[in-house]
Amino acid sequence: MLLFIAANAAAEEGMFLFTNPPKKAVADRFGFEMTDAWLQRVQKSSIRFPNGSASFVSPEGLVLTNHHVGASQIQELSTKENDLLANGFCAKTREEELPCKNTELLVLQSIEDVTGRVKDHVGLSVALFKRRLELEKAGVLPEETSPTTSSEVAEKARRAVIAAIEKESLDTTGLKSNVVTLYQGGQYHLYRYKVYTDVRLVFAPEQQAASFGGDPDNFEYPRYCLDCAFFRVYENGKPASTPDHLGWARENVKDGEPVFVSGHPGRTNREYIYDHLCFQRDFVLPRTMQRLYRLESLYSVWAERSEENRRRVKNELDYIKNSRKVRLGQLAGLQDPVLIGPKFDPGDLNSFRSTKDAEGEWKTEVIPGNPDTKRIYTILESWREFYDDYMLFEGGDAFNSKTFQIARTLVRLARESEKPNAERLREFQDANLETLKSRLFSDAPIYEDLEILKLTDSLSLLLTFRKDVIPAGPARKVEGEPNPVHPAGHVMGDTSPIKRATELVKGSKLRDVAERKRLAEGGLKAIEASDDPMIEFALLVDFHSRKLRTRYETDIEEPLKQAYAKLAEARFEKYGDTLYPDATFTLRLSYGAVKGYAEDDGTAVPPWTVLSGLYDRAALHTNQPPFDLTESWVRAREALDPETPFNLVSTNDIIGGNSGSPLLNTNAEVVGLIFDGNLQSLTGDMVYTDIQSRAVSVHAAIILEALRKVYGMERIAEELTGP
Amino acid sequence: MLLFIAANAAAEEGMFLFTNPPKKAVADRFGFEMTDAWLQRVQKSSIRFPNGSASFVSPEGLVLTNHHVGASQIQELSTKENDLLANGFCAKTREEELPCKNTELLVLQSIEDVTGRVKDHVGLSVALFKRRLELEKAGVLPEETSPTTSSEVAEKARRAVIAAIEKESLDTTGLKSNVVTLYQGGQYHLYRYKVYTDVRLVFAPEQQAASFGGDPDNFEYPRYCLDCAFFRVYENGKPASTPDHLGWARENVKDGEPVFVSGHPGRTNREYIYDHLCFQRDFVLPRTMQRLYRLESLYSVWAERSEENRRRVKNELDYIKNSRKVRLGQLAGLQDPVLIGPKFDPGDLNSFRSTKDAEGEWKTEVIPGNPDTKRIYTILESWREFYDDYMLFEGGDAFNSKTFQIARTLVRLARESEKPNAERLREFQDANLETLKSRLFSDAPIYEDLEILKLTDSLSLLLTFRKDVIPAGPARKVEGEPNPVHPAGHVMGDTSPIKRATELVKGSKLRDVAERKRLAEGGLKAIEASDDPMIEFALLVDFHSRKLRTRYETDIEEPLKQAYAKLAEARFEKYGDTLYPDATFTLRLSYGAVKGYAEDDGTAVPPWTVLSGLYDRAALHTNQPPFDLTESWVRAREALDPETPFNLVSTNDIIGGNSGSPLLNTNAEVVGLIFDGNLQSLTGDMVYTDIQSRAVSVHAAIILEALRKVYGMERIAEELTGP
Repeated sequence: MLLFIAANAAAEEGMFLFTNPPKKAVADRFGFEMTDAWLQRVQKSSIRFPNGSASFVSPEGLVLTNHHVGASQIQELSTKENDLLANGFCAKTREEELPCKNTELLVLQSIEDVTGRVKDHVGLSVALFKRRLELEKAGVLPEETSPTTSSEVAEKARRAVIAAIEKESLDTTGLKSNVVTLYQGGQYHLYRYKVYTDVRLVFAPEQQAASFGGDPDNFEYPRYCLDCAFFRVYENGKPASTPDHLGWARENVKDGEPVFVSGHPGRTNREYIYDHLCFQRDFVLPRTMQRLYRLESLYSVWAERSEENRRRVKNELDYIKNSRKVRLGQLAGLQDPVLIGPKFDPGDLNSFRSTKDAEGEWKTEVIPGNPDTKRIYTILESWREFYDDYMLFEGGDAFNSKTFQIARTLVRLARESEKPNAERLREFQDANLETLKSRLFSDAPIYEDLEILKLTDSLSLLLTFRKDVIPAGPARKVEGEPNPVHPAGHVMGDTSPIKRATELVKGSKLRDVAERKRLAEGGLKAIEASDDPMIEFALLVDFHSRKLRTRYETDIEEPLKQAYAKLAEARFEKYGDTLYPDATFTLRLSYGAVKGYAEDDGTAVPPWTVLSGLYDRAALHTNQPPFDLTESWVRAREALDPETPFNLVSTNDIIGGNSGSPLLNTNAEVVGLIFDGNLQSLTGDMVYTDIQSRAVSVHAAIILEALRKVYGMERIAEELTGP
Repeated sequence: MLLFIAANAAAEEGMFLFTNPPKKAVADRFGFEMTDAWLQRVQKSSIRFPNGSASFVSPEGLVLTNHHVGASQIQELSTKENDLLANGFCAKTREEELPCKNTELLVLQSIEDVTGRVKDHVGLSVALFKRRLELEKAGVLPEETSPTTSSEVAEKARRAVIAAIEKESLDTTGLKSNVVTLYQGGQYHLYRYKVYTDVRLVFAPEQQAASFGGDPDNFEYPRYCLDCAFFRVYENGKPASTPDHLGWARENVKDGEPVFVSGHPGRTNREYIYDHLCFQRDFVLPRTMQRLYRLESLYSVWAERSEENRRRVKNELDYIKNSRKVRLGQLAGLQDPVLIGPKFDPGDLNSFRSTKDAEGEWKTEVIPGNPDTKRIYTILESWREFYDDYMLFEGGDAFNSKTFQIARTLVRLARESEKPNAERLREFQDANLETLKSRLFSDAPIYEDLEILKLTDSLSLLLTFRKDVIPAGPARKVEGEPNPVHPAGHVMGDTSPIKRATELVKGSKLRDVAERKRLAEGGLKAIEASDDPMIEFALLVDFHSRKLRTRYETDIEEPLKQAYAKLAEARFEKYGDTLYPDATFTLRLSYGAVKGYAEDDGTAVPPWTVLSGLYDRAALHTNQPPFDLTESWVRAREALDPETPFNLVSTNDIIGGNSGSPLLNTNAEVVGLIFDGNLQSLTGDMVYTDIQSRAVSVHAAIILEALRKVYGMERIAEELTGP
């Protein structure tokens, strides 16, 4: 695909590495020189938030992100009495800033290219393995049983060397260290992060103000969302000193002005070959959407039964609705010949052609000389065979419950801890253990009724897919004969989904953090001695789940990585560093311009909206949810400047994960806050166009105006702009 | 299954034929003698409404049914200015009664057993066919090409003889005549109906009052729904004379009092064998629910975008939500060993047993001597093979749009009209033509935007299932090569679902009734000359759709019918007329008692609710939708007796289609109006229990109270009770 993209790349396409910034393109396009100092400052001001991006906007640790990015944190601070999501939160003094549960903010300190070391180690391991096979065959060495394929060896070796690099780095620098796989395995970079764990909530508007228009307006534009929130990081009980931070623009950004986004785009598939896109379109997306539709209905119906239900499930429901809309947009793009057509047979490395066979049927064939595209096709075919089972068991679709997730983590933690670091599942390796434990021991509320609802539904889903007896493997407590009426007898305990879910959830003590700690500290012994039904259940399904995980990593993930690595290599040879790698939820820079666009019917859409439009829109919908104004905005109306810019669009190339990223001018000053893309941007996953696709930001001006005149947060406005 | 049911039948189970009423059971249980006069009166007072049941409740053609049963009629009378669903409707005089569009009410006049004639004709045709085959084989007769199997012959013969019987009866009596297949083909009865086509709306409450609590409360109990509406049938411009009608109870029904339901239960599957239930559970229901979840999301999101959208899609959305809840309940029942367990291996005609094979896997096998159960299993296996394709093309899942339905009907009408009556598709046979045309020429509104939305979504669904080129067959206008990027090129016209849907819907003139009439009158010639894009589209997919229809009727429907007929025969031999046949959307009688029940946690649920509970429930939900009171009920509160019974539960065995049925006492007086079942009744499709399963009615008392004191409809209250 990239051939096409590279050849026809839209002017402002690209999510660039900070180690390979688009200096020339930006200079050519805007006459702006991105200096190394500018880049350093932006990099060290950029923050990775658990579910998105953020930035430092004052020297005293003040953090700006989206309300929807910080929503989990805000919800976890809510109580039945005070729903901070609904009511918003304003810390009038620093003392009132509320410590969040279980929140880690990461700031990228350095990037090191470790491609050579990873590739050397993998190459050597495979060579050694092949040599041993020869010797075994020759009878010189006795036969060993595992591993059995060089792909397995490669995967293991890569995991081992990455784990070693990360551990060395952590031990040496004390910084959180992650090896990032770029270009589908073409490059490996070591990213070192400073970690902030004392994060406090400073300000959040009411969710209704943050996401005015709700799901109907999601991904739409023009918009009127104050989708922002402020947090502050602390060290040793005091606001952290953050000399690297962004300024705040004193003037409103202009139409056509160059703007930059520094953030963490999550995942793109722009290097996918045509068949891979078809696999996504015809196999993965329809399945994903089935799950999303199902959960959307389940959660919506439950939310309708009471206000308390609605509060409990709101975040999960919003997430599902958002995902559904994104997937729908992606599918629409992939089903549109205008979009996917050019991806077909671009005539170069990623090369297919269509011919008619004897019966007059169209066949797609790989042009000889591109074995890697053929290999990718074959790998995807075998992925089909166990995709559903994988998603149910290892993906957890069959056990949708936080209690189960905790139980599985405890069971695996006990088992993995007994292995050498390099051989553990990735999430249990030393470099990731702290994050894992902070999540495991979070005291965020878990609602018994919602847990039962979700687990009932997902066990019912399991029964639809699996009529046979679950292969129980060497797990403990597999007794009795399966029930012929309910062949998934062991897992279902011979009863109905609702009764099984009820007994598992109600019987479990894992909602108590102390019990989790006791089991985690007790290791395998404590797990085996436990009679917690959810622990027993997690043990029961773990053998099968892990088998699927191994199969996926060995037969799919690793071979795909290798095939794409070869394609990526070939691309490098041809295109050098004009290419940017697919998004990996690590720090990237994108450039663009503030710019309106035209809808299909010719309607001109302006580059930004203004405040008065918010009141007009609410009036048009007779102030009915989700288009209702909050009391605070009704009250403040007279004081506010109706011409204040509210939301704005720009051509920056972004994707999910970029939410909360600052939109910067050439002075590295905040002019906006990325919070969404328009409908036409939803295919950005696969392809970027600058015709209608736009990034949507909260305008810096409305943030100041609202802080001052709606929320009485002058102290923060002053911290942003200086006195 | 019936063996089990018959042996263990719950006291009040059964949807009885009027030709075989449960006189003895009722006499034994309640000491009440159902006389033939009583039965005749109830039969002739009972009405089949397009989507449910109804009854005559005055000598002047006054019809009582549910608001939700008449909702299509009410919506079709609505305008953008006056939404009768939302606002309700009260005809203060007979002159104000509003003529409905396209509505036929049927009243059953007589029942004739035609089993002998049908079976004779089918038997003879098959014998002749076999003889001809022998003669062909012997070279005595030249070989013919079709039909090729005796199952095909039987199906054709049955269709022919049924069409002949219906036509004879229509010609002789002038009454609408339908042959009803009972006991899965064990019996055939000829039902003759008087048809009323001038139906006028008399009274409808606000939909919010009718379905207070909305989807969250649907199938729940206790309830507070005034789910009733009144219509009136006219003949020659005057209220029809209906001497056969029900009385109105002057006293409230008592706890434990015997009550009867006369109505049209739509469909039950109580004769299904175990494997058929598993087929429903594991194959059909999950697929159906996927579609429902998808449409629920599609319609909900669209409804949220504006009030007008919400009005336009409301009925369809309510229908989807209702179906989803029903299917969920059914699935839950089928996944519960307590419910489905007893259906497994009851040890008689429907006989399976489970054994372990060599590998220790459980296998289910049919006990020798029951070839019909084995045959059913085999038929269902072959149904799997083309089920999806059938639902997409012939079921219309791929072309979800009223405009398409009209186009398909026009195309088929032209083609079928050229065939002899007996050879036509069922819906185009003479006996059904009038109904078909009244629907085809209905001027009920069709919304272009909603049509595009639905068709876009369903074409996208089609693309997910069918990557290949649609077999275009001998249809006209199949030109050009398929597009290799979009292999379903012909159907998709080489463009995206949204663009294709837009061009089809916007380009079509079929929303104009006159154009439909022109095409219908012009016959095949007019159809072939038409350049309406939707007509061309319907032509394009018709060949493939009809092939699937034929395959279904020949390979699935007919052999299943035969296999079940054999099982039914065997059952008859053993159990005689203690059995009732599965529901067939024809008139049935059920008996039961007014009776509360206990929830799983022991909570006692009373047999009826009272009016004050409505106000309490609204207050609990702070009067928020869907628990908001209408202005009329807020205003009337003081005038109303808070102790008036509102909704009530009884043990009657009902199912969807019974909605709108009168609940009668032994005097054939209305004591309530069936409108729902509780959650525990949702498995009634497969199995009836009287433990918690209950039919839910609007109490007769609240109907009178509301007519008089909320809606100022004293004239109707008086017509019901007499002056």
